[in-house]
Order: sequence, then C-alpha cells, then structure tokens
Amino acid sequence: MFAKLCRPVPSLNFRTVKCFCKPRQLNKYYNIIARANCSASSSFLCDKNVIFVAGLGDIGLDTSKELLKRDLKNLVILDRIDKPELVCELKELNPKTKVTFMPYDVTVPIAESKKLLKKIFDKLKCVDILINGAGILDDHKIEATIAVNYTGLVNTTTAIMDFWDIRRGGPGGILCNIGSVTGFNAITQVPVYSGSKAAVVNFTRSLAKLAHITGVTAYTVNPGITRTSLVAKFNSWLDVEPDVAELLLEHPTQSTKECAASFVKAIEKNKNGGLWFLDQGTLENIKWRKYWDPCI
Amino acid sequence: MFAKLCRPVPSLNFRTVKCFCKPRQLNKYYNIIARANCSASSSFLCDKNVIFVAGLGDIGLDTSKELLKRDLKNLVILDRIDKPELVCELKELNPKTKVTFMPYDVTVPIAESKKLLKKIFDKLKCVDILINGAGILDDHKIEATIAVNYTGLVNTTTAIMDFWDIRRGGPGGILCNIGSVTGFNAITQVPVYSGSKAAVVNFTRSLAKLAHITGVTAYTVNPGITRTSLVAKFNSWLDVEPDVAELLLEHPTQSTKECAASFVKAIEKNKNGGLWFLDQGTLENIKWRKYWDPCI
Repeated sequence: MFAKLCRPVPSLNFRTVKCFCKPRQLNKYYNIIARANCSASSSFLCDKNVIFVAGLGDIGLDTSKELLKRDLKNLVILDRIDKPELVCELKELNPKTKVTFMPYDVTVPIAESKKLLKKIFDKLKCVDILINGAGILDDHKIEATIAVNYTGLVNTTTAIMDFWDIRRGGPGGILCNIGSVTGFNAITQVPVYSGSKAAVVNFTRSLAKLAHITGVTAYTVNPGITRTSLVAKFNSWLDVEPDVAELLLEHPTQSTKECAASFVKAIEKNKNGGLWFLDQGTLENIKWRKYWDPCI
Repeated sequence: MFAKLCRPVPSLNFRTVKCFCKPRQLNKYYNIIARANCSASSSFLCDKNVIFVAGLGDIGLDTSKELLKRDLKNLVILDRIDKPELVCELKELNPKTKVTFMPYDVTVPIAESKKLLKKIFDKLKCVDILINGAGILDDHKIEATIAVNYTGLVNTTTAIMDFWDIRRGGPGGILCNIGSVTGFNAITQVPVYSGSKAAVVNFTRSLAKLAHITGVTAYTVNPGITRTSLVAKFNSWLDVEPDVAELLLEHPTQSTKECAASFVKAIEKNKNGGLWFLDQGTLENIKWRKYWDPCI
C-alpha cells in the first residue's frame, strides 16, 4: 500500500511524501489523494462543508450563488458586515444547503479567528474547504490594505491549521485563496494593493508545496479586471492616477457572474498548487516561472 | 529642449513623460535623467547623501562598509537598535563621509517616519538615495514579519515622497529596496516571509513604472541565501521544517561581504526598475515574466 500511495499523483505535488510521512499519517494522506481525485467529478462539491470568508462581497456573492447550485451541505459565510437580505436570498436558493452567516473581521487577533473556527467545527464536525476572499482596494489605506489582504488571510489560514493539520490529528483540508492578477503583474497605480496580492500568490504556492506535511492542499483564484463596486472607483497610491478606475474599465473586463462561474470551476478542479487566472470569462492555470531554486 | 528630454533614456522607462510632465516639472525630470546617466561612472556614489534603513544589520553592515569606500558625503543609518561600537567603526573608515546614526523602527506610524525624515532633510538639505533594508525572518511571528518587511517598507517609502515627489516641488530621488529571491520563488517552509518579500518585489516594480510621475526611480536588490545570523537559525511556519536553516545552508551560499559587494555594484548601476539577483557573489538583472497586462 505504501508503494501505491507514493506513486506520483498527477494533480498533486507530493513527491517527498516518502521522506516526510510517518506511518500514522498515511491514512490521512490517502484521504487527501481520494479527495483530490474527486476533482474530475461534477459532483465534487456535493455535500461539502464550505467556509467562505467575504462570501457576501461583489465576487463573493455571485460565487456563493454559483456554489449553491452544487448542493453543498453547509455554506458558512463569514463577512465583516451582515447583510440579512442577501443572506435570506442565498438561503432560499437551494433547500439542500444550509446557509449560515457569522460576522468576522479578518484583522482580529489570530486567537479570535481560532475561537470562531472552533464554534464552526464544533457545529459541523468537519470543514472541507476554506475560501479566503477578504480584500480591499484603496491605496490611500496602506495599513488596512496589507492587514486585510495579506495578514488577515495568513492569520485565518494559520488558525484553521489547528483543526486541519494532519500532524495534530486533523483530517487535512482544502484552501482556496483569492489572489489577483495584480499579484502576477501589478496595476502600477495601486502598488500597495498589488504587492499585497503578490504576497497572497507567493504564500499560497508555498502552502501547496507543504501539503505532504500538513495535509492541506491549496490554490489561488486570481480574477482579472472584474466589474465590481471595488473597481468602479478606487484610490491610487498618492493619487498618481486619479482616473485609474476609469482607465482600467476602458479595456476588456468580465462581469462578476462570469468570474463566479470560473471561480467555482476552479474549485471543482481542486488542483493543489493551481494558480488560476480568471479573465474575461475564461479560466487558465498559470505556470509560474522558476527564477531560482532553494533546493530544499 | 523638450524633444531632447523626451528621447528614450536607456536606463529609465520614461516613455510617457511627454504626456504627464507639466512644463515646471521638466527641469526636475532633466535632473533625474542626469542623475541616472551617472550610473556608468564609478564615482556615481561620490558626494551623495544616502539614508540606509537597517544599515547595521548583517548584510547592512557590510554594505555600509562597502558604501563608505565610495566617498559618500553623508551616510545616515537608521536602525532599531543603536550599536555604538559598530557606528564608531564605520565613522573611522572614511573621513570624507559623515556617518550618522538615528534610531528608527519601521513599524511606527507614518507620521513618525515623516518627522524623522524632516529632521534629516532639514539637516542635509537633500537626500539622493534611500535604502530600505529592514527585515525579519521568523515565520512564528506573522504580524511582525509583515509589518516590518512590507508595511514598514511601504510606509517609509510613502513618507519620503513628501520630500522627493516632483509633483510637490521635490527633486526626485532614488529608492533601493531590499527584496529577496524568496520574492521570486519562495522558500516554502517560510511562506509568510517569502510572501512579504514577493510584496516588496511587486511594489517596487510598480514604483519604477511611476517614476515619470513622481520623479522617484526604484529598484530591488534580492539576495540569494547569504550566511547571516538571520539565516543561521530561524523558525518555519507552524514548524513544518524545524531544520530549515541547516538544510538551506547545505547548498551553495554567499558571504555577507560578497553580497555587499554586489549590492553596491547594483546601486552604482542605478537602473530604474532593476530586479537585481545577488547570488553566490554574482549580480544579475532578472527579467520578470509578463503574465498579463492591465494596459494602462
């Protein structure tokens, strides 16, 4: 069985499992592979428990609606501000899925995140997927941009490892982080935002490579320019380009619905290390260039 | 003269100067070109005023020593902890350069950074180069890593724009940010640190492209694995690899002296948008891959 487990699995990069996995972890590892292999199935999301941070946002809301078409078991939406009418709308979309809202600000100390997650795990017993989608776009607000877009995402991710990490007896899990194409190549007029998204892309790529140790697979979905309220008007750094939003929207974009459709397709592909580029209604897995190799 | 100014300058990407520069800014722009054109000269650093954040660090100290061989006018070292014996040593190295130390923690509010910079500008009248080198490597400390490595660097950069930005009547300036090769491709065992460095790389690339607006050119120096006290022992994220430091040091590395020599060579090249890779005593300007283009 060990040899079977250590065969290369196309959708996962578990080449070092032989060296790192202790015997008791192999069952967990087997489960992860089994889960990853569901990816081809259209029913991949069926009966899953999903936490969606910022699931009421512009891209978030349409993605939540798209997710609800897949007969999830639970969709737990964590967002900074409750919007009861939207939550009601979501609850009515699919009676097979229980939709819950809980208030959550990703900038709280990590201990608070762990408390909230404990409540959710106590209730649901297991969580299959965490979608980290909190983000702001306002380069007048340096601290807030970095605190929400990067620190908040890292803290929420780190917090859930208490429950997922196979080294702690957890079952593993799937992490879907919302990056941005600006993490690949910046919108130079918003360097603080773009930098924070580059951090998310780089961070998540590492987590994917650590999946053989933690049992947690990871990928990013990186929307291109999407017609959201976020993008309709935003501040550039030091006002280097006051019309940045207007200029950006002169070029081809995508609707939030198109983005949401690609988003859920990416989740269904469930590719550890996926670097999904969601642009103008298309979905592409980007191959990151290797500039150097730490060899470890 | 306008036509002459708007000719392409090889070491700068000022292609849009014609569209953005108001007439009163053209003299400033001319100064920037003149400064950039010094880059071929070995005396580029001679008589310059340089602020070096973290100039007493492991790479910082050897780089400060290397800088002092170039007959700067002033070297103002800002660091969190005063190390009087090291400052004395630096002061004695070259009587032509006035070395000053001032305490500075990059995590202070931006208003504090501006106050400190005002003191320096009041004293020196002009500052030619700011080197942003504060960094920590400890993935147990998520908030501190991001606050120092990314937010602190952005805040210090933003603060100096009050004095440099040509739109505010400033003379322009040169920004040298210390990134890391982990900003290109992570050391996966320290994803928080690596992500913060990806942010620095992405942020600085944007600033370089904004130089035609702000008058401030920018580049990163990105050391490969360098034998510093930082690297001798550090914590991996959630202890995914307790021996990460030892493993890393089993592969080819460079000394801080080798790194410092390349560092100052990069400064002398003064290439706006430079993405300098400093590894095993060599210096290379990396070409970043274009994954998409915002077209603005």
